[in-house]
Amino acid sequence: MSETKITLPESAIPAGWYNIAADMPNRPQPVLHPGTGEPVGPDDLAPLFPLDLILQEVSEEAEVAIPDAVRDVYRLWRPTPLYRAHRLERELGTRSRIFYKYEGVSPAGSHKPNTAVAQAYYVNEAGRTRISTETGAGQWGSALALAAQLFGLECKVYMVKVSYEQKPYRRSMMETWGASVVASPSQDTNSGRAILESSPDSPGSLGIAISEAVEDAAQREDTAYSLGSVLNHVLLHQTVIGQEALAQLEVAGAFPDLVAGCVGGGSNFAGLAFPFLREKIAGRELEVLACEPAACPTLTRGPFAYDFGDTGQLTPLVPMHTLGHDFVPPGIHAGGLRYHGVAPLISQLVLDGLVRAEAYGQKDVFASAVRFARAEGIIPAPEAAHAVHGVVEAAARADAEGRERTILFNLSGHGHFDLGAYDAYLRGDLEDFALPEDEIERALKAIEPLPKPAGVSS
Amino acid sequence: MSETKITLPESAIPAGWYNIAADMPNRPQPVLHPGTGEPVGPDDLAPLFPLDLILQEVSEEAEVAIPDAVRDVYRLWRPTPLYRAHRLERELGTRSRIFYKYEGVSPAGSHKPNTAVAQAYYVNEAGRTRISTETGAGQWGSALALAAQLFGLECKVYMVKVSYEQKPYRRSMMETWGASVVASPSQDTNSGRAILESSPDSPGSLGIAISEAVEDAAQREDTAYSLGSVLNHVLLHQTVIGQEALAQLEVAGAFPDLVAGCVGGGSNFAGLAFPFLREKIAGRELEVLACEPAACPTLTRGPFAYDFGDTGQLTPLVPMHTLGHDFVPPGIHAGGLRYHGVAPLISQLVLDGLVRAEAYGQKDVFASAVRFARAEGIIPAPEAAHAVHGVVEAAARADAEGRERTILFNLSGHGHFDLGAYDAYLRGDLEDFALPEDEIERALKAIEPLPKPAGVSS
Repeated sequence: MSETKITLPESAIPAGWYNIAADMPNRPQPVLHPGTGEPVGPDDLAPLFPLDLILQEVSEEAEVAIPDAVRDVYRLWRPTPLYRAHRLERELGTRSRIFYKYEGVSPAGSHKPNTAVAQAYYVNEAGRTRISTETGAGQWGSALALAAQLFGLECKVYMVKVSYEQKPYRRSMMETWGASVVASPSQDTNSGRAILESSPDSPGSLGIAISEAVEDAAQREDTAYSLGSVLNHVLLHQTVIGQEALAQLEVAGAFPDLVAGCVGGGSNFAGLAFPFLREKIAGRELEVLACEPAACPTLTRGPFAYDFGDTGQLTPLVPMHTLGHDFVPPGIHAGGLRYHGVAPLISQLVLDGLVRAEAYGQKDVFASAVRFARAEGIIPAPEAAHAVHGVVEAAARADAEGRERTILFNLSGHGHFDLGAYDAYLRGDLEDFALPEDEIERALKAIEPLPKPAGVSS
Repeated sequence: MSETKITLPESAIPAGWYNIAADMPNRPQPVLHPGTGEPVGPDDLAPLFPLDLILQEVSEEAEVAIPDAVRDVYRLWRPTPLYRAHRLERELGTRSRIFYKYEGVSPAGSHKPNTAVAQAYYVNEAGRTRISTETGAGQWGSALALAAQLFGLECKVYMVKVSYEQKPYRRSMMETWGASVVASPSQDTNSGRAILESSPDSPGSLGIAISEAVEDAAQREDTAYSLGSVLNHVLLHQTVIGQEALAQLEVAGAFPDLVAGCVGGGSNFAGLAFPFLREKIAGRELEVLACEPAACPTLTRGPFAYDFGDTGQLTPLVPMHTLGHDFVPPGIHAGGLRYHGVAPLISQLVLDGLVRAEAYGQKDVFASAVRFARAEGIIPAPEAAHAVHGVVEAAARADAEGRERTILFNLSGHGHFDLGAYDAYLRGDLEDFALPEDEIERALKAIEPLPKPAGVSS
């Protein structure tokens, strides 16, 4: 039997992040100011983000050097292992070879620290001493809390109130790493106070928490705002995943026919897929698959349009596949995939046919996740379980067609804080949330694509 | 800066387990039958354990070969990383070098699968198809559930009822891996039914759960019983930890002055320490430190005596340091360290002065654990946090004495399922459970050391 996992020494941590914008056949459209309809410039973003991150957001260089201090933190868990899924292959009885990159070995349990660490570094370099963000169930907030602690920054997390009350463990994790966590809506911001005044019992929402975190950062010179997905620089920081995987597959003497990842905002998918898409753009044969929930089918059902990034219409207008900024997906357990839009870079790649998307129901996803856990040991996060299911399906298709494929996917995190979801599945209590067509139609009608700005090619 | 972690390829997984019994200056006394006072023989154990494990229990060979099928499962997470705690050293401002072996990368999150996998393998080889065990908070039960699944065995876990109801996540983990979990006392055994009849609302205890699991295995020919600590063969299986650490320190060009681990039943401590004690017995300079809770000070306060392994007086009599089989330690969060006794092998090594023990209060332990988490990222399990605290204290002492030491400890698991304990600590709600002297005195008086059997040297 060949190796089960391929590990690399710390010297193999990539020296740079890969910026796919440099190689895309069509660059994504610019983000627009909702008032003027003009592209958003560095000055618009400066109150929220340090200049280095703004420059990364618009960079056209293929490689952005990773600062030594960031690579030093990456050493705490990187390079992450690449597994050959021998036991899953046997369980499936497939002729295909299946590999997965496992990002759950980070202290926060997911890929999120890859960008949290980079962002905390640049915020500190820019002389700010504090960082604010929002979090739903806490996956992103805990990654940022860890990163802020390692760079000596204060960290303020606005956590959606219903999660704050019902899922205290991620909150405890953030506080253990020194973050200050408050239930959103809170008394700490104008937007929070306004909502509490009209609805004292508001359970909160990611949209409200974003408003609070942005307001916090905008009003304090010592504070930067931090986002865990969607933006170009966030996806950029995740590309260490795919670069390591390329090197590890080379050790195994393999190159994939299929690369898959789950997509919410898009950062873990991009992190694995972009370095492989570079090869595909250069002419190499490769299928790239984005796995999303049927309850929030942004890429498979949403049109490509200019839309707000948040429910509250506070953000710039973003060119992306979207189900409409007022679309509220059902409460599936993969909370990280419940986003009405998706990263502009990924949207453009789907539009250009370089990435294909599929959507799956929650029950099928958990069935594959349990199958995976019983074969490989690791219990996948519900988000990552979408990629697992996509691969199970792809292997079955290949077997039916008599093909032997080499499949790679991103197991972006573990499910230690999602065992309640597994419990619901095993007891038969899991809902599938088949989305009514009329609800999608209604959401789609609400999107009014804005005219493109002058001088922007399509 | 030198490497943060030293990883080894799968080919470096040890070929054998190290049996310290072969090298000890004084072998431990035999385990005795409580009725006859005679040493327990293979026939007494055969209803519960497969023969291979019974032979390992009494083996005098220094090396026991690890079956290929067991090494193949170990590949899923072994070799585990050895970390140089650069950031903790800076946080402490110490001149000492601190290394830690991290066992939390196993799918169950602790060192426990090292023996669970071996036991499941031998049970399967012996033609039995089912395995039973008890579990408190679920750390051991989840390791055995995983191992049973990987070898195609049914697994029945008797889980202490209060944990079953209050800590459902470990239960969900066991069920995800296919185990059948029941709250103990249960209706499934005579001993469970008897307790339910007299106390229908019994919260259960580890003692009761042991009785149920043993009865289950004793009454079914298809079933073996499995224990997660204390026994010789369990400690044996854990020695992969220390053997890997020796090889990793060699890569780092280091050998420790001090090796530390937390001790409950003793298996993670033994796993790291025994291969280093082999060097010490051979004449190498080395201090070996066992870290236990002040709330259950077995090694620091308990006499060496023959005592029952369980509260219910069902087990053979075990020669060990003990606080008395009816000693009920206060409810500290490090549930895995709440055992009245400790492994005979470790007891003998303490008696012979090869291992030294210290006991710490819970608040001090969590203070060090939070300090560790904020420096190194990983959040320690409350059990492992005792080793962290022991090392923090040892480094401070070395600095005060102007010494530069090389310290190694076992970080035996992560605290993802113990964040409620961190929450209590951060809010100042943690009790220290200073044990009243009279309670210890009372417990100690209850121990009646039995006469040693004829022909056994002391």
